[in-house]
Amino acid sequence: MQRIAFQLTLREGAEAAYDASHRAVWPEMLELLTRAGIREYSIFRRDRLLVLYMHVEDFEKSWSIVESDPVNTRWQAAMAPYFEPAAGLLAGERFRMMREVFYLA
Amino acid sequence: MQRIAFQLTLREGAEAAYDASHRAVWPEMLELLTRAGIREYSIFRRDRLLVLYMHVEDFEKSWSIVESDPVNTRWQAAMAPYFEPAAGLLAGERFRMMREVFYLA
Repeated sequence: MQRIAFQLTLREGAEAAYDASHRAVWPEMLELLTRAGIREYSIFRRDRLLVLYMHVEDFEKSWSIVESDPVNTRWQAAMAPYFEPAAGLLAGERFRMMREVFYLA
Repeated sequence: MQRIAFQLTLREGAEAAYDASHRAVWPEMLELLTRAGIREYSIFRRDRLLVLYMHVEDFEKSWSIVESDPVNTRWQAAMAPYFEPAAGLLAGERFRMMREVFYLA
């Protein structure tokens, strides 16, 4: 099992709308995340910085399942106005991945 | 059980030394964290930003146990050169806490 964390950045002023959307994530989107093997999925926010944390067996595989589903296409279209354009990505990165430098069970 | 996340910032150039320290955390420090009730504790880093994630029954109580122990005093003294001075804290905050805006088990 992998512990994954990555960052996203909200546009200025989008904080409240983003939070409200995430208090009411569509049931079909929750079902898709679960079907894709995503567990213990938390989104933490401070100001405009989001950190997404999750457990997966295989992040690339899970995220491919999510991204190829039309439910996610609709969800991302609804969320897109809230995000800053991705910046600071390394070659081949989908997201600004964080590296786990310490773990204690 | 609480899921907690907060941010710390490293000084420029301290990244490699910080990572190396966290590949070799003192056994007595690990024992203290466990005794304080901290579980599933991960530290994620990208560039100079650290995000600390953990499970605790009561964060204030656990952190008080950690902070009152001389092992932690020695550990923090060893780590202090790596950190930027805390900035952007709200009144009463020890750390730049992040708020969980979404969770899916």
